[in-house]
Amino acid sequence: MSTEPGPFTDPASVAVVGASADPAKWGHWLARGALAGEDRRRVYLVNSRGGAVAGRVPYASLDDLPEPPELVVFSVPASAVPEVVDKALELGARGLVGISAGIEDDYELARRVRAGGARLLGPACLGLFDAETQLELAWGQFEPGALGIVSQSGQVGLELAGLAASAGIGVSRFVSVGRQADLTLEEMVGELVEHESTRVVAIYAESFGDGRELVRTITRLTEAGKPVVVLTVGESDAGRTAARSHTGALTSSLDVVDAACRASGSVRVRTPAEVIDLARYLLLTTRPKGKRVAIVGDSGGQGAVAADVTARAGLRVTPLPAVLAARIEAGLPDAANSVNPIDLAGGGEQDLRSYARVVRELTGSGEVDAVLLTGYFGSYGEDTPTLRETELGVVAELGFAVHRTGIPVVVHSMSADSDAVRALRDCGVPTYHTVEAAAGALGTAAQFAPPCPLPLVWGSAAPVGEGYLAARDLVASAGVRFPAGAAVTDRESLLAAAERLRPPYAVKADFLAHKSEAGGVVLGLTDAMSAVWTLEDMLHELGPGRYVLEEMDTREHTVEIIIGARRDPAFGPLVMVGAGGTDAELQRDTTIELGPVDTERAMTMLRRLRCYPLLDGWRGREPLDVKALAETVAAVSSVLAGCAAVAEIELNPVRVGADGVIAVDALLTRAGEERT
Amino acid sequence: MSTEPGPFTDPASVAVVGASADPAKWGHWLARGALAGEDRRRVYLVNSRGGAVAGRVPYASLDDLPEPPELVVFSVPASAVPEVVDKALELGARGLVGISAGIEDDYELARRVRAGGARLLGPACLGLFDAETQLELAWGQFEPGALGIVSQSGQVGLELAGLAASAGIGVSRFVSVGRQADLTLEEMVGELVEHESTRVVAIYAESFGDGRELVRTITRLTEAGKPVVVLTVGESDAGRTAARSHTGALTSSLDVVDAACRASGSVRVRTPAEVIDLARYLLLTTRPKGKRVAIVGDSGGQGAVAADVTARAGLRVTPLPAVLAARIEAGLPDAANSVNPIDLAGGGEQDLRSYARVVRELTGSGEVDAVLLTGYFGSYGEDTPTLRETELGVVAELGFAVHRTGIPVVVHSMSADSDAVRALRDCGVPTYHTVEAAAGALGTAAQFAPPCPLPLVWGSAAPVGEGYLAARDLVASAGVRFPAGAAVTDRESLLAAAERLRPPYAVKADFLAHKSEAGGVVLGLTDAMSAVWTLEDMLHELGPGRYVLEEMDTREHTVEIIIGARRDPAFGPLVMVGAGGTDAELQRDTTIELGPVDTERAMTMLRRLRCYPLLDGWRGREPLDVKALAETVAAVSSVLAGCAAVAEIELNPVRVGADGVIAVDALLTRAGEERT
Repeated sequence: MSTEPGPFTDPASVAVVGASADPAKWGHWLARGALAGEDRRRVYLVNSRGGAVAGRVPYASLDDLPEPPELVVFSVPASAVPEVVDKALELGARGLVGISAGIEDDYELARRVRAGGARLLGPACLGLFDAETQLELAWGQFEPGALGIVSQSGQVGLELAGLAASAGIGVSRFVSVGRQADLTLEEMVGELVEHESTRVVAIYAESFGDGRELVRTITRLTEAGKPVVVLTVGESDAGRTAARSHTGALTSSLDVVDAACRASGSVRVRTPAEVIDLARYLLLTTRPKGKRVAIVGDSGGQGAVAADVTARAGLRVTPLPAVLAARIEAGLPDAANSVNPIDLAGGGEQDLRSYARVVRELTGSGEVDAVLLTGYFGSYGEDTPTLRETELGVVAELGFAVHRTGIPVVVHSMSADSDAVRALRDCGVPTYHTVEAAAGALGTAAQFAPPCPLPLVWGSAAPVGEGYLAARDLVASAGVRFPAGAAVTDRESLLAAAERLRPPYAVKADFLAHKSEAGGVVLGLTDAMSAVWTLEDMLHELGPGRYVLEEMDTREHTVEIIIGARRDPAFGPLVMVGAGGTDAELQRDTTIELGPVDTERAMTMLRRLRCYPLLDGWRGREPLDVKALAETVAAVSSVLAGCAAVAEIELNPVRVGADGVIAVDALLTRAGEERT
Repeated sequence: MSTEPGPFTDPASVAVVGASADPAKWGHWLARGALAGEDRRRVYLVNSRGGAVAGRVPYASLDDLPEPPELVVFSVPASAVPEVVDKALELGARGLVGISAGIEDDYELARRVRAGGARLLGPACLGLFDAETQLELAWGQFEPGALGIVSQSGQVGLELAGLAASAGIGVSRFVSVGRQADLTLEEMVGELVEHESTRVVAIYAESFGDGRELVRTITRLTEAGKPVVVLTVGESDAGRTAARSHTGALTSSLDVVDAACRASGSVRVRTPAEVIDLARYLLLTTRPKGKRVAIVGDSGGQGAVAADVTARAGLRVTPLPAVLAARIEAGLPDAANSVNPIDLAGGGEQDLRSYARVVRELTGSGEVDAVLLTGYFGSYGEDTPTLRETELGVVAELGFAVHRTGIPVVVHSMSADSDAVRALRDCGVPTYHTVEAAAGALGTAAQFAPPCPLPLVWGSAAPVGEGYLAARDLVASAGVRFPAGAAVTDRESLLAAAERLRPPYAVKADFLAHKSEAGGVVLGLTDAMSAVWTLEDMLHELGPGRYVLEEMDTREHTVEIIIGARRDPAFGPLVMVGAGGTDAELQRDTTIELGPVDTERAMTMLRRLRCYPLLDGWRGREPLDVKALAETVAAVSSVLAGCAAVAEIELNPVRVGADGVIAVDALLTRAGEERT
């Protein structure tokens, strides 16, 4: 969409079709909301059954309007929708917002709208709101602010807006995209790049139509300095099923969505409350540059609880250097502990300024990336009015420490809403009533990382061959090492090949996708004659065709890894690496990234694996060739991304030794032949 | 302690030493609180510096009181404490509460107090509160209610009380145990068994002095129908370190605490907010009898989010039977989905009574153990006054459905505090403002299980022998199978033993604790002569002594398991079972239980292992002998519990096959020889 304010941002006129006097009806809230923007645009209420609405006599039909409306929002029974839409198009409306649900053929309706030169939001959406232009076409009331919300579920969007209001966070723009029959989530998210008052973006999505495009759009927001928080579902079977039946679309698995978030520099959260806790953080202060957190409390117990919760949030609560610790302890009671969590041990209560002094030491030390203050701070002045001024003074010092150093400070306060708590927020210190909310927001804020550019290349359409050798050759052409091997069809060709190859041998049926299960793989053949007999058995059992005589990887101290790549319908090429071997399935120790990836990114994937220590000098053994493994992952990802004819590649196992990586099996699925 | 109301429950008189006019001082709050109970008991304020406190002229010294006080609470500088305590004892006080911190020798003070016929709470505690007797000797104000709080950290206790007040939950009794120099956490928890108004108990503990006794005390509370929620720390290194340095005591690892919770029928949570969310649940409704949850919402998005969060809370959101699903769908819009989560798809908004009808169907079906309602319900009447009465009618129906069927209903409402939300709580339906709080409380409530009686037997003090064979024999005497083997010392005794044993053989140095590392184990010896040569090598390298010639377990398709047992300083005998083999250390797939366990309990341990599917017919293979494995676990736990001379037993690996279990190594550590 163009960057000109369009009909969905700042229309000159709006018509509400289905305006209602009944406050239990959507048509009532749409009318009320539209009229709230009457200073800026002309608003027409339409209701065929007459009766005053919000003190106005509605028009009986769109035909009766004094001018063609630029934007038409309709909340009428599904059966009445086609007529309303046709009339609106006929009059020349440029935008339509469909609240109505249950319309029989959404996509046909959308086609008509586009053919009529207009665009459609919804149907079955819960409207939109834009604080900049006083455009309010939704249920409830919105406080203007800096949080942009685009939601595939209207109710989740409204829950976000409601929680935002409770948290004192206003909304800059709210868009419920409904069925996305025409305008997509990606498009509506894209509009926020240049939407000036939007500083943080929250997205709720259940399915990802053009996921690759959404990744690019979020990347643009990220690069514009607007952090994006993605709320999605699918962690559980029930959540996945629900999303699928709700949107009618196949959902991508959550690890793919996580990969998309990493690629676009956004983060994923699980609940609306997590979105708002994080939004509060992002709107008030800078993100930590690392994961080292110092915890400060006047109570050892609260410090210990905070330490556990903070570690659980993915942050590191590491001991402080002795010099810093000593500086912190000076002036605190003997019982104080500066290891981290730092326990002021009553030193805060004895002198509130201890909080400021300790936080100043920490933010100025270069040793921590953030400070979490936990416990009673924020409640002193509330419980003891004589302490109010001192506490507010400390608040100002905390704000100044953050401002001066760029090290964020987050507060968990036993007071939900004291003067001090409000003052903390006013000076850029996010404050939360529970320690898990404070640590959770800080932990998620620390997850933001720069986006990773996604190449546009979609690869050649050249056909690829069938069978194991073809798969081997294709992957080997990208630099992946396999054991030496040769095609054989009978005793003679096998004996000839055996002269060039070193035992022990493996014999494999080239033409079987699932060779092992079908008896098409025999390993550990110590000499050429055993290989001949094996081949002859296979020829008898599996029939004539191409077989492969292959050397075996006989290295000791190797670790088995699985590498895969496939094309996701929404997000395009993906690459996966994980623990191989027998209990790989049980341990589910795998990680995925949008492909293609380079060696460096492949290396970050490996480091995420639980089995990574096995690769990196486990129990004093020689480190394995992790670099070659990363290169193999990168190579597999490029092969898939570069060949449109390949749907899926799986190398399993890939044997990693100290002297390199050898793939000992390869399975390639061609486009159109996907496994079901 | 006796069940008579003692000095810490309902003293006839209280003296506050250190009463202060300064509202920033503890002495001020103690005085105010004590005076609030003046209708019931005589209250004396003592302050050596004079000046009116709360409108009273304080006594200059305990000596000046008109009678000996039954309970003395003191908040004075540490240096003044011994004098106050001696004076109180001299006057005949029966109880002392020490707020003062920094006292040099707590334990000497406690000894003096006990010698004087009194008891001491604290020092360094934050006081106590009892709603039944208007005994209020703590900071802040407490609302009377049904939650009993016993906390090792005063501030965490106060945070619990504060969150409880925000949640509309009152406190029956609050005890901050401080340094537990005399009265222990276990004792103060035990007082709640017969404390009538206490219906739910929250404990915050960082260390577990007599953990076994605490388990018995919690079991008594559980059996008295008072569920217990345990908040503790130690999930992270920082949390463990903090707890240790705060309490000065070694902390038990969290998996041991979890085992203690299982043994006592209590549950563990991570944060104060989780305690209060769960307390709200427990005070309002019954615990679910199973883990099957139906989720109901008017929005597919909110239902999907709830499904994920509910599954994450350890509950099961499984599809409903077709007949039930059909009954639910009748009368709902076409778009409605009754798979679970159930999406009313606007059917709730069209007719609020749909909520009641669907919940009635679910609670009456026998197919679910709980219902979670998520989304807009609770907000209708607030936003649209014309819907208020209907919504309250639905609330009453929900309450009645719970009452009639015993199936709990929990509500996540977008409204934090509407009339409907309050009405829900009034009729036994716990209501939360976030879906994670609702699902979290329900999930934790579903974790309660009956306590498991802990035998009192501490075992014989008979000495146990040293070395591998002695360990084998001791464990084998409890029924654990080992490969056949015999002690050998030289060529002749080995050859004689080999005649009776079947190759392949293993030769092991009996006298080495870490045999493998020291070259004291050689496996896979195919005949007697290889065994002889091996023995002779070992005699040369390791010196003369007792060696063992052993058969080897040559069965195929076995899984390696580790079984261990040890004595925890706080919780006594423990038994552990986990995945063995090379990456056991990496995968940390182990589970622990307070011992001894019987076979049935050992079986529940096995089912908790991630590797359990490997034992139970993995990929169509024959199921392994899980029952024999459970018997082995139980046997190991009994051996440890029964022999006071044994500090630790480790069988690693234990090889589980389809035809039984064979332990192929055993390591026994004797008491006093613990590994460091």
